[in-house]
Amino acid sequence: MDLSAPSSLDLPRPKPGDGLHTLSTPLPVIDEDKLAANIARVQSYMDSHKLAFRPHIKTHKIPALARQQVEAGAAGINCQKITEAEVFADAGFEDILITFNILGEQKLARLAALNERISGLKVVADSIVTVTGLAAYFTGRKPLTVLVECDTGGGRCGVQTPDEAAALARGIAASRSLRFGGLMTYPKANTEAAVEHFFIAAMAYLAADGIDCRIRSNGGTPSLFSAHLVPSATEHRAGTYIYNDRSMARAGHCTLDDCAMHILATVVSRPTPERAILDAGSKALTSDLLGFADYGHIIDYPEAIITGLSEEHATVDLSKVEGIRPEIGERIRIIPNHTCVVSNLFDVMTFHRNGVVTRVEEIAARGLVW
Amino acid sequence: MDLSAPSSLDLPRPKPGDGLHTLSTPLPVIDEDKLAANIARVQSYMDSHKLAFRPHIKTHKIPALARQQVEAGAAGINCQKITEAEVFADAGFEDILITFNILGEQKLARLAALNERISGLKVVADSIVTVTGLAAYFTGRKPLTVLVECDTGGGRCGVQTPDEAAALARGIAASRSLRFGGLMTYPKANTEAAVEHFFIAAMAYLAADGIDCRIRSNGGTPSLFSAHLVPSATEHRAGTYIYNDRSMARAGHCTLDDCAMHILATVVSRPTPERAILDAGSKALTSDLLGFADYGHIIDYPEAIITGLSEEHATVDLSKVEGIRPEIGERIRIIPNHTCVVSNLFDVMTFHRNGVVTRVEEIAARGLVW
Repeated sequence: MDLSAPSSLDLPRPKPGDGLHTLSTPLPVIDEDKLAANIARVQSYMDSHKLAFRPHIKTHKIPALARQQVEAGAAGINCQKITEAEVFADAGFEDILITFNILGEQKLARLAALNERISGLKVVADSIVTVTGLAAYFTGRKPLTVLVECDTGGGRCGVQTPDEAAALARGIAASRSLRFGGLMTYPKANTEAAVEHFFIAAMAYLAADGIDCRIRSNGGTPSLFSAHLVPSATEHRAGTYIYNDRSMARAGHCTLDDCAMHILATVVSRPTPERAILDAGSKALTSDLLGFADYGHIIDYPEAIITGLSEEHATVDLSKVEGIRPEIGERIRIIPNHTCVVSNLFDVMTFHRNGVVTRVEEIAARGLVW
Repeated sequence: MDLSAPSSLDLPRPKPGDGLHTLSTPLPVIDEDKLAANIARVQSYMDSHKLAFRPHIKTHKIPALARQQVEAGAAGINCQKITEAEVFADAGFEDILITFNILGEQKLARLAALNERISGLKVVADSIVTVTGLAAYFTGRKPLTVLVECDTGGGRCGVQTPDEAAALARGIAASRSLRFGGLMTYPKANTEAAVEHFFIAAMAYLAADGIDCRIRSNGGTPSLFSAHLVPSATEHRAGTYIYNDRSMARAGHCTLDDCAMHILATVVSRPTPERAILDAGSKALTSDLLGFADYGHIIDYPEAIITGLSEEHATVDLSKVEGIRPEIGERIRIIPNHTCVVSNLFDVMTFHRNGVVTRVEEIAARGLVW
């Protein structure tokens, strides 16, 4: 082994000014103009309906992008885990809602430290177990604001009925170390009536108890443009919209042209006339199908179908591609089925305009699952 | 914001001596004894059949584990991408086979630099385009060893027939800057006869041309214990076996008890008697189904079914769990459907014996897709 060679890995990272066509693949890249348009479109909708907007940073995990969202008018951010929130608190964000049940000594200790550092930390809880744990840990500390998570049909976390929501809220309000912040839900798409009913009913119980229900936080990119159909909501949370993806386009929440994230890939093999192999596999696209039968949309060859994904290869069926088919060495662009999980695979995200790299941002909260 | 708080993220990383039960979840952990047994079992099989064994490092991406594999008797390693190989060359490995078509100036430059550093670099190619690119770039440099990738039924990369393999081999052998190293394949499981036929036929053509076919590299964990049914193979490559996973157990290549990787998770919600929510989602397990209808095997509650995965939550159906059901705050262990992709989500891997952390290794090649 030649020991004079550098021992630290000098990765082929993009730099501002690089032409996209020069970059090593596979590589996710973000179109600056589509990004800005997505941010503006949603903020404009929220403003027109007088809804506060709370972007979920999980989709990008980059503080600079959250700043863009806040500069456009967003009021605070949404994180899913404590360590995500810590990264964004480090970057100066003060109004952070963590939409997760926080349990266990280690996590409660970090939550308490975070609560000391920023002015607007909020968490959610959906059980008296979680609330009791929070109340006990925060005894003698700066009080923690807790919202009740409501299952309005999403079938994941959340109390099951409005009166259960009110009961849990009473438990929070009764604790000297906690503050009841309001209600939160992550609904199924197209269930606005159910969300509204749940919120209104829970608020009626709370009003009867003299408990103020300041925040009613609705969420989801699929519910974005129907958010005004939940009049009782004070804010809406959404993550995916900032980049958009094939799943959002299929559901009619955007067009394929609104998808700011493309994965650049190279054709590395043409074993048969009907098969191409790309250098992007599940470690670049993830194998998230989200109801699709195939693994992504190839912009340059819309009739090509990514039928299989290995970890570092994509198998593409070209049989429906009329005319010219891609050649070995050719670069193609893929719109992923699911954009949020791609961000979590890479250390940096590359941004571009007119085919030229504008900036490269560290994906600061990558891999933070605690 | 309290600026006296530390600005760098002090992650809750495990340390040697920690009890597993104290660690923050979700967290993948590796049982040292199962790991050692998996390494020994496969090496013993290979030794008994006089097959050289070339482990694929993609499953762990950790140089120390590759050293364990080599110390047990493995002859060289397998990487999928150049940057993976660079990390392992940095760690002292000399015999590295990169099973990928390498194309493009940037990657060829890195390949040439790697070839200068180590004594046993080999790549594969399945087209004259790839071979021509390699031959041109390596003109005037230390010659590069190239194997021909053969599609023996796997349906991914590879020349389609033995005579195409021989033709490409002739192209490699004719180049002054390349050396023909032999044949390589990544077959479907249970296709030993097809692999043997292809290798034998290609070798006959090559022998007729006076071209030495030194290496015949077969591969795959599913084909591991039938590798001896390809007598013409000189070596076998496999990655997944070192940890094993639910997919390998279902196929009969190991038992669930041989699965060295568990994902530790915590129950964060019990919204209904039949539903539990865990803090491990697709960002800890990946959504790789690999033919399963559900997302992993819960060791502690075998009848529980992970019916849905969000990015940071698992939705678990408890309806078939008789007797005691898990409670909020309870820690459970999951065997993933697919272990290789889990390694690529995390920065470190935690090892343990008898419930105590033994070591924590950096996943050195995490996220390296070029």
